[in-house]
Amino acid sequence: MSEAIHATVWNEHTDEQRSGPVAGIYPHGLHTTIAEGLRDLLGGHTTVTTATLDQPGQGLPQPLLENTDVLLWWGHKAHHRVTDETVARVQARVLAGMGLVVLHSGHLSKIFTRLMGTSCNLRWRKADERELVWTVNPTHPIARGVPHPIQIPQQEMYGEFFDIPQPDELVFVSSFTGGEVFRSGCCFTRGNGRIFYFSPGDELYPVYHHPQIRRVLANAVRWAHNPVPSPSVPAGSPQVRGDWFTA
Amino acid sequence: MSEAIHATVWNEHTDEQRSGPVAGIYPHGLHTTIAEGLRDLLGGHTTVTTATLDQPGQGLPQPLLENTDVLLWWGHKAHHRVTDETVARVQARVLAGMGLVVLHSGHLSKIFTRLMGTSCNLRWRKADERELVWTVNPTHPIARGVPHPIQIPQQEMYGEFFDIPQPDELVFVSSFTGGEVFRSGCCFTRGNGRIFYFSPGDELYPVYHHPQIRRVLANAVRWAHNPVPSPSVPAGSPQVRGDWFTA
Amino acid sequence: MSEAIHATVWNEHTDEQRSGPVAGIYPHGLHTTIAEGLRDLLGGHTTVTTATLDQPGQGLPQPLLENTDVLLWWGHKAHHRVTDETVARVQARVLAGMGLVVLHSGHLSKIFTRLMGTSCNLRWRKADERELVWTVNPTHPIARGVPHPIQIPQQEMYGEFFDIPQPDELVFVSSFTGGEVFRSGCCFTRGNGRIFYFSPGDELYPVYHHPQIRRVLANAVRWAHNPVPSPSVPAGSPQVRGDWFTA
Amino acid sequence: MSEAIHATVWNEHTDEQRSGPVAGIYPHGLHTTIAEGLRDLLGGHTTVTTATLDQPGQGLPQPLLENTDVLLWWGHKAHHRVTDETVARVQARVLAGMGLVVLHSGHLSKIFTRLMGTSCNLRWRKADERELVWTVNPTHPIARGVPHPIQIPQQEMYGEFFDIPQPDELVFVSSFTGGEVFRSGCCFTRGNGRIFYFSPGDELYPVYHHPQIRRVLANAVRWAHNPVPSPSVPAGSPQVRGDWFTA
Repeated sequence: MSEAIHATVWNEHTDEQRSGPVAGIYPHGLHTTIAEGLRDLLGGHTTVTTATLDQPGQGLPQPLLENTDVLLWWGHKAHHRVTDETVARVQARVLAGMGLVVLHSGHLSKIFTRLMGTSCNLRWRKADERELVWTVNPTHPIARGVPHPIQIPQQEMYGEFFDIPQPDELVFVSSFTGGEVFRSGCCFTRGNGRIFYFSPGDELYPVYHHPQIRRVLANAVRWAHNPVPSPSVPAGSPQVRGDWFTA
Repeated sequence: MSEAIHATVWNEHTDEQRSGPVAGIYPHGLHTTIAEGLRDLLGGHTTVTTATLDQPGQGLPQPLLENTDVLLWWGHKAHHRVTDETVARVQARVLAGMGLVVLHSGHLSKIFTRLMGTSCNLRWRKADERELVWTVNPTHPIARGVPHPIQIPQQEMYGEFFDIPQPDELVFVSSFTGGEVFRSGCCFTRGNGRIFYFSPGDELYPVYHHPQIRRVLANAVRWAHNPVPSPSVPAGSPQVRGDWFTA
Repeated sequence: MSEAIHATVWNEHTDEQRSGPVAGIYPHGLHTTIAEGLRDLLGGHTTVTTATLDQPGQGLPQPLLENTDVLLWWGHKAHHRVTDETVARVQARVLAGMGLVVLHSGHLSKIFTRLMGTSCNLRWRKADERELVWTVNPTHPIARGVPHPIQIPQQEMYGEFFDIPQPDELVFVSSFTGGEVFRSGCCFTRGNGRIFYFSPGDELYPVYHHPQIRRVLANAVRWAHNPVPSPSVPAGSPQVRGDWFTA
Repeated sequence: MSEAIHATVWNEHTDEQRSGPVAGIYPHGLHTTIAEGLRDLLGGHTTVTTATLDQPGQGLPQPLLENTDVLLWWGHKAHHRVTDETVARVQARVLAGMGLVVLHSGHLSKIFTRLMGTSCNLRWRKADERELVWTVNPTHPIARGVPHPIQIPQQEMYGEFFDIPQPDELVFVSSFTGGEVFRSGCCFTRGNGRIFYFSPGDELYPVYHHPQIRRVLANAVRWAHNPVPSPSVPAGSPQVRGDWFTA
């Protein structure tokens, strides 16, 4: 259970360059802050790389994906700039066993809507509201070591209905000052891959500096890591012989 | 609970024209046989239309979709001929509330893989095997009035792992002579739409003449019908006011 | 789909006799108000009976249970007075196909904890808080025709973690003024029976007079009704012959 | 991820004493063979203890339970000899965080039916049939490193409908020579506890000597281990203050 994990934090990296306030909170980019949190909590057995949209292969060339066990995804304003080729490449790796952790506004990223098959729409409001993140799945590894609730003093509101498939496992439900609720921590499995969507986090609030949010992300990387893809998942739709298994 | 239901049976309608044996079993096309079964069991409150790939708008123009409560989908060899425009049109209607019943080889149709987000691959074998369809969800409306098990004397084998998301509700599990198992009746909800995948059925076996298979399809049309789309599902991702709901 | 439904509303009927305020809100008992709401919305095809703890057989003799399709359960202070014999009798009927709708403080009733296998504990507070009931399962029949959210001006707070098994279907999630969240509408299937737990409702607030809460209860009675128990559910654990099904 | 795990294998230990054939396959008792398999695969970080019905406290005194992280349960003919006190003691520990792995005929044990809330009935046949165990949840830790399918040359048939709640996670589905299917690997969470039911295994077949079955049991012990019970699970149903979490 102590396999080394290669995590890659991908960031479209546009807000930080456009906005003074964002640069103030995340001077080296959200990806750098998220990566630091993972390194602090996951320690030596894990390597954490970062990648951004403007790099070759949109930051996600095939060799990097092949060497990535878990990919974390931050996107916000530039979803449309991610090409269908990049989306197809990432989707194929997820179905083959790479874990994927989709963060906050990534709910509208092409890769998430492609994997979900739904619009992934939601209701939102930017009004400095308090978010409380409640655990509704106490034995889940992603909830391990977090308080009940996690308190985030100021946050963007995300509200139901969140147009996703019913999660395989619902881990967290949040409430906001205005009264909305949101399924803020959702697990999905797809082929040989594991996907975790986590809504807390924003470019205008220091949420990724929050120690308990960092704990959730570290737990998520461990949970999403599939060290041994199962032989049960077929490559294509093969025609098989009768009783082939006894041959 | 007695709303009229408008069902449309769509068929790519290629096997019947290519193959003598298929034409012998389904002389007027699989869509005609499936539609007859629905009319027999659902009676006057339901209207059943048929459509085929070679018709205008690939048989599924927007006005027909707008007037369809539940769409049944048969496809096999011509999945690639369904355009992305048609797929997008059908997907939008499903998320807006149209039910979808995907049959047998439709597991690789563009519309099903788009809605699932996975490869939908499986293992298969054509060897005249006996299929037994076992109920594992006794209170489910789609299992109502069916024996345990449904026996199909000769059928194509479909075997696990079936690369779909974990179903919201697993209704049937099948076994085959060779020893394989398959999740043969799977329910999914997506947005305001309900989707049922049912694997029994083939162009080379008279499965759609089987009275208990017809019962399952009739139950599925009733289950998939969503007469009142919920206001909870947002159009787009709207920004909302604080306490907007009390306004 | 238009089978007649025989519903029975059971009430321990103690609060109304003890407390002036409760009697003011529910002068003829909570069971009478709940039954009136069902009659108004379900109409002629449904018969609604009431029963209370002090009646013979604790209000639930075997003949009444045999003739009940869906049982609604209100209990609060007298859970301990319900005998194990009564609990065993009701549990057997649920597993045989009777629907069960458990209301509010019924979360600690013997019948609910027996069917769930958990403590069914939760956190609570009586502080006249606003409850908002959000739909997270838009196509579910129990959510049909309800607004998003349902607004209850004053209510007792019920908060997570609610110690129940993960629901087969999560329909509603509530928030409260204090910031807590609660899975307020939960579906379970057990054997041939369907169970719905719904937390809104209290003896000190007029929640069962709320037209949208009445809508949910009427929808729940329809959903919980299983008109045709499945032959798949075995009586005991029978030894079976090989290929017995083809005999 | 490398916490030490204290596992206890409990066995009613009656078949081995009654039956020559059973003693031939499991000369030191099923518990000894199961424990050996766990020690071989889990190695130094895990301690494995055994316990039997005839020991003080029916083999499960409170101090042993307090020191047990995961309990494996074999029972067959002596379910009725396990007292309600023992069942209540074990159930309380499961809800508090002890993992439970229920084996084969343990489906009718008092502790399993108490935790499930259903009859846990099934169909069965003893006819030396081949069982094939197919993975339907490829990323699940309990399926890690097992072939597809696991082949068991001779086994007792267990067939659907298995009267359990819908599993939180369905990991394995089996088929048998006679054509029946069975949900043979099922995960449940209850309170702070994790429960895995695994049907392969019998006193008259050497199933617990099968290296791949041993792999599943070792994986199950790791999965069922909850090293850090969540503070979200309440002790009792406490009344809480408004905004207590900010105090």
